[in-house]
Amino acid sequence: MKSIDNLPKKMKALVFVEKGKIEIVEKDLPKVGPNDALIKVTTTTICGTDIHIWKGEYPVVKGLTLGHEAIGTLAAYGDEVKGYELNERVLAGAITPSGHSAACQGGQSSQDGDSEKYGYKLTAGWKFGNIADGCQAEYILVKDAMYNLAKVPSSLTDEQVLMCPDIMSTGFSGAENARIKIGDFVGVIAQGPIGLCATNGARLLGASKIIAIDGNDSRLEMAKKMGATHTINFTKEDVLKRVSEITDGRMLDSAIECLGKQATFNQAVNLIRPGGTVSSLGVYSEDISIPIKAIGAGLNDGVIAFSLCPGGKERMRRLMEIIETNRVDLTKLVTHTMPFDKIVEAYDLFANQRDGVLKVALKF
Amino acid sequence: MKSIDNLPKKMKALVFVEKGKIEIVEKDLPKVGPNDALIKVTTTTICGTDIHIWKGEYPVVKGLTLGHEAIGTLAAYGDEVKGYELNERVLAGAITPSGHSAACQGGQSSQDGDSEKYGYKLTAGWKFGNIADGCQAEYILVKDAMYNLAKVPSSLTDEQVLMCPDIMSTGFSGAENARIKIGDFVGVIAQGPIGLCATNGARLLGASKIIAIDGNDSRLEMAKKMGATHTINFTKEDVLKRVSEITDGRMLDSAIECLGKQATFNQAVNLIRPGGTVSSLGVYSEDISIPIKAIGAGLNDGVIAFSLCPGGKERMRRLMEIIETNRVDLTKLVTHTMPFDKIVEAYDLFANQRDGVLKVALKF
Amino acid sequence: MKSIDNLPKKMKALVFVEKGKIEIVEKDLPKVGPNDALIKVTTTTICGTDIHIWKGEYPVVKGLTLGHEAIGTLAAYGDEVKGYELNERVLAGAITPSGHSAACQGGQSSQDGDSEKYGYKLTAGWKFGNIADGCQAEYILVKDAMYNLAKVPSSLTDEQVLMCPDIMSTGFSGAENARIKIGDFVGVIAQGPIGLCATNGARLLGASKIIAIDGNDSRLEMAKKMGATHTINFTKEDVLKRVSEITDGRMLDSAIECLGKQATFNQAVNLIRPGGTVSSLGVYSEDISIPIKAIGAGLNDGVIAFSLCPGGKERMRRLMEIIETNRVDLTKLVTHTMPFDKIVEAYDLFANQRDGVLKVALKF
Amino acid sequence: MKSIDNLPKKMKALVFVEKGKIEIVEKDLPKVGPNDALIKVTTTTICGTDIHIWKGEYPVVKGLTLGHEAIGTLAAYGDEVKGYELNERVLAGAITPSGHSAACQGGQSSQDGDSEKYGYKLTAGWKFGNIADGCQAEYILVKDAMYNLAKVPSSLTDEQVLMCPDIMSTGFSGAENARIKIGDFVGVIAQGPIGLCATNGARLLGASKIIAIDGNDSRLEMAKKMGATHTINFTKEDVLKRVSEITDGRMLDSAIECLGKQATFNQAVNLIRPGGTVSSLGVYSEDISIPIKAIGAGLNDGVIAFSLCPGGKERMRRLMEIIETNRVDLTKLVTHTMPFDKIVEAYDLFANQRDGVLKVALKF
Repeated sequence: MKSIDNLPKKMKALVFVEKGKIEIVEKDLPKVGPNDALIKVTTTTICGTDIHIWKGEYPVVKGLTLGHEAIGTLAAYGDEVKGYELNERVLAGAITPSGHSAACQGGQSSQDGDSEKYGYKLTAGWKFGNIADGCQAEYILVKDAMYNLAKVPSSLTDEQVLMCPDIMSTGFSGAENARIKIGDFVGVIAQGPIGLCATNGARLLGASKIIAIDGNDSRLEMAKKMGATHTINFTKEDVLKRVSEITDGRMLDSAIECLGKQATFNQAVNLIRPGGTVSSLGVYSEDISIPIKAIGAGLNDGVIAFSLCPGGKERMRRLMEIIETNRVDLTKLVTHTMPFDKIVEAYDLFANQRDGVLKVALKF
Repeated sequence: MKSIDNLPKKMKALVFVEKGKIEIVEKDLPKVGPNDALIKVTTTTICGTDIHIWKGEYPVVKGLTLGHEAIGTLAAYGDEVKGYELNERVLAGAITPSGHSAACQGGQSSQDGDSEKYGYKLTAGWKFGNIADGCQAEYILVKDAMYNLAKVPSSLTDEQVLMCPDIMSTGFSGAENARIKIGDFVGVIAQGPIGLCATNGARLLGASKIIAIDGNDSRLEMAKKMGATHTINFTKEDVLKRVSEITDGRMLDSAIECLGKQATFNQAVNLIRPGGTVSSLGVYSEDISIPIKAIGAGLNDGVIAFSLCPGGKERMRRLMEIIETNRVDLTKLVTHTMPFDKIVEAYDLFANQRDGVLKVALKF
Repeated sequence: MKSIDNLPKKMKALVFVEKGKIEIVEKDLPKVGPNDALIKVTTTTICGTDIHIWKGEYPVVKGLTLGHEAIGTLAAYGDEVKGYELNERVLAGAITPSGHSAACQGGQSSQDGDSEKYGYKLTAGWKFGNIADGCQAEYILVKDAMYNLAKVPSSLTDEQVLMCPDIMSTGFSGAENARIKIGDFVGVIAQGPIGLCATNGARLLGASKIIAIDGNDSRLEMAKKMGATHTINFTKEDVLKRVSEITDGRMLDSAIECLGKQATFNQAVNLIRPGGTVSSLGVYSEDISIPIKAIGAGLNDGVIAFSLCPGGKERMRRLMEIIETNRVDLTKLVTHTMPFDKIVEAYDLFANQRDGVLKVALKF
Repeated sequence: MKSIDNLPKKMKALVFVEKGKIEIVEKDLPKVGPNDALIKVTTTTICGTDIHIWKGEYPVVKGLTLGHEAIGTLAAYGDEVKGYELNERVLAGAITPSGHSAACQGGQSSQDGDSEKYGYKLTAGWKFGNIADGCQAEYILVKDAMYNLAKVPSSLTDEQVLMCPDIMSTGFSGAENARIKIGDFVGVIAQGPIGLCATNGARLLGASKIIAIDGNDSRLEMAKKMGATHTINFTKEDVLKRVSEITDGRMLDSAIECLGKQATFNQAVNLIRPGGTVSSLGVYSEDISIPIKAIGAGLNDGVIAFSLCPGGKERMRRLMEIIETNRVDLTKLVTHTMPFDKIVEAYDLFANQRDGVLKVALKF
């Protein structure tokens, strides 16, 4: 194991205490195994999922460090980790696959499982702040570092790449799984940070008309900056009617659902043309109903695709290349910057969507 | 227009009279336009959809000729139809796309639409016995003949190719849209004629373990003949538990739903591994609910694909090649043969699944 | 058949006389069949292929009307053509597939064949100015109009859509067949009109670094306007070395060849990473040699894809949507405008690449 | 590290001495690192590539242990290797990717590279008997064991799975990359062990007519057993003419080249229809020329795909599932069995294709 000098024994970390309660505690620094890397965090952030955990809507063990998005410098790494140098700037995806499970070898690494018996395990590529200590801490341990540790180009600031681990990778996967072809009409339902990235992803993949749908005009304004050609405020307009007008009755080749509610899922299914695609990024808390008429009793040749954020160093590298070549600027989603010590306050701000918040950068 | 000699003015046809009532009537022979072909039917058959129409569960106009599967000889064709000869043996798919709509040009010809304004129309490639006179008649008119008229090799009997227009094309599409890769574990839920063809399609596409599920042992026996490596009678065994045992806990790479009920759809979703595919062939009469836990709250990287039978002469040719090279023998699905005049009786037999019926060949 | 009033009996057309000789002659107006449409041309243009024909390097019959790109208004159409109105603005792709051949039904309509016996015929979707009278004429006949006749939105000028029939469709297909994924490094070799569109297509499909390669600085300047992030003038720099530097040694995920010479093909193969794609748009006049070392003795998991321009009204509609949503402006490729009567002069200008010519609009 | 008792210090291994000379020597047992596994070999075999190395046609370092195919029992494994037990039967693919390189994460693990700087390295997933000690030895070291170590079901003999590491995986990849659809016409050129597996793969993926081509009648007989529907002995018949007859002039949807010569590559390109695929498995020793006329001057919409054997435990598991479900029996390719001590003799037999040899099982 190689490590920087002066590695402390203890570190600060935000942990889940109980439903509705999170706090910064002091924890031991994690032990670094042969395939692990330790990142000294410079910037982290909060995701909607973290809020669900805080509110007790998604179960995690007590004392778990929260968060799954961080950028920092390499503080230590195991003997089997090659090609990196101490102190270089690095990040890891929110999803950190092992790289060797059946799911990984089959091209679906986010469903990576740790069970040899079963080979697969649902969403088990998501470890940080879910089934292992997360990223809202001074130091984070990256398992399977050769698969997951991505170098950050010196030309890019922490804020420029802060969306790579989750928001950008997730939003883009929504567009990728929408099977977009050149000239497609694409709708993106809900324009939170992930929806905004899905809008941008649709643009990046060659859609022509890109229709952003939300109930908040300032988010729709942001959607235009991210590449939407049309916007619909569903509180003011009939979405189905407007989409029909905009597309001259053709409706959408694909609809990307970014909220996770029955109403928005319904909308997605109703907006696609025969043979169209619904690409779902939402996290649903109840069974979803498919409106049968909209899919021609099951005969519409349509596809519904569900996606979890892709991880891995190669995905991260590609996303950073997109940023470095100025194909998208996501710093505009970083509406607030606060010191890490104020993270509990930041959770409250973010959860209540006060002050036009989209994403908060938390700095050490 | 070219036609055989002695073309009659009138013909027999089975029509929908009202809910629960069908009868053979005499109709005028259809007029043959420049792009049309007229087939003199030698063999036709009855599909589950016809039963739905008979029972009034699927709406068609009164007086419509029913049926969408037929084989016969070429009796007449329009001036724009080239490359065919009178009296040669031909068939057309159950789905007869125009070949020129946006849906056709986009590779989804079953969703072919007749509206220039909208470009697409849900399931509008299905014309026979749905929105145009069908195949349970002495003569049938094939529109867009250059796209739809397929030649039947002289080496094949009517019975050998009777499944091509619908059952085989549909069942195989269920397997094709299941995204099967070499070595996959595939489950096929319900082993009626379409399910049996889906079972065969899974085998044809390289699956290893192919698990046929049904409540009827004789259909499960037939499933083995069609390529199933394992069978489960759901009335006797716990399907989830058995699939887990058979697959050593890995569960299915894909599940093909062939019935169209909530219970079987649920089963399909529950049986797939993370990242697996549900390929749905069922015709549903009510909204379908997706069990959210089985798809990891929407994060399972899974796909649900809905399919309508592919048509067109090239699809038909390929299916007939499969039969001609002895890759499958579907004559075993033709359990009964009756004269066309007894078609009302045949509907009753088929609807009530009496006498181990799978498919009935009706002959002129 | 419906037609505008005052349809003349004769029209002007540029024809191939003999090797090195073309001239404007007077021809009879073509006869309009049930599935045909007649376009009164407002704007046409000249393609590199036309120059090859002029020079006798590509064989056509004497007296054939040249050209395969035109925009105009609908002057007449047959009884089987529905959904159009006389005088509306229309265009057809350079490639006009029948819509019903095996190739069309298999999703490769540019290889459409007219032979029932063989089903397929090499590049037989290309009819205009090749095996049927072409587009450099006052009127042009579009066969299979329901498949090929695309409406031009009133918001778009002839100059805006002049690249749709061939240049844009071809260039984009080069990018489409390069299997580009988000973040890819793509090289485009040769920046004539098609190469410039391929550069733009790579941008439209989510590439990050897009490297345009040519020997002409003004074309490389234009490439930057079309979306290139880097340019290499091969007369001044070592292309392999520069690509290695730009990509930090990773080389290209795909290289699009747009010239049709052994040297550029070699370059494409040498520039891709293991497992990369060569997408070839060039028209080669001699056998091409694949440098075996660059493909690891045949074990590089690479792909070489050859493309012919896609046609059909749906392709045309999608390209026009891309233009209408301001995703690309191709009017900058129209460097010259001349009256149709000066077309022989225009051939000379274009063939000799004088005066910075990229494309010439010829107007009636 | 865990290991079986009585692990020896030394082992027998067949090494490359110099051009034309190989011999069994005694070597130290390899050291087992944290991510490694050590297999005690029970059966190994010889591949055509080994012959090339022996003859000095493919360069390796002197003293390298040859071979890349072996089955055995787990003799030792490192601390980071989980889910395995000592003495269980295991095998590894001929290609042993790291699982974490950019190539692996991009789904092309056979092109796995060991260079962090370059990310990719041509065919670098092939390590055994190429850039690391190989499988013709008493013990073999499997790096990245969590990615590469596949369990062999107790129901299968060594002989049944002997083709999995290379021959079957390679042959099947030739069929997979041929983009076969249900009903396709597929030709397989050369019927050595890999060609025979490609023939079988074509059958497994839904081809209808499968045409095996070779100059050796006994190999063509074997091809029929592997699924060929037609055979052509090129020494007795005109291949192009026969394929045209068999396919009624349509020619092949795809041709799989399994030899690696200009003549067979030419044949593959000439046999495909417009838009068809050439899937190449051959290892070429010289630049390959593409016959330009056969690809319509570059406009045939065709694809040429080059493949290297896929590895990894999941691939191996899938291949073994295919064998276990009786979809193919490859023991018929094992024509000879000899003790390991006679391996030099076996090389000679195999290299000279004496005695109808296809594959030789070498046993400890």
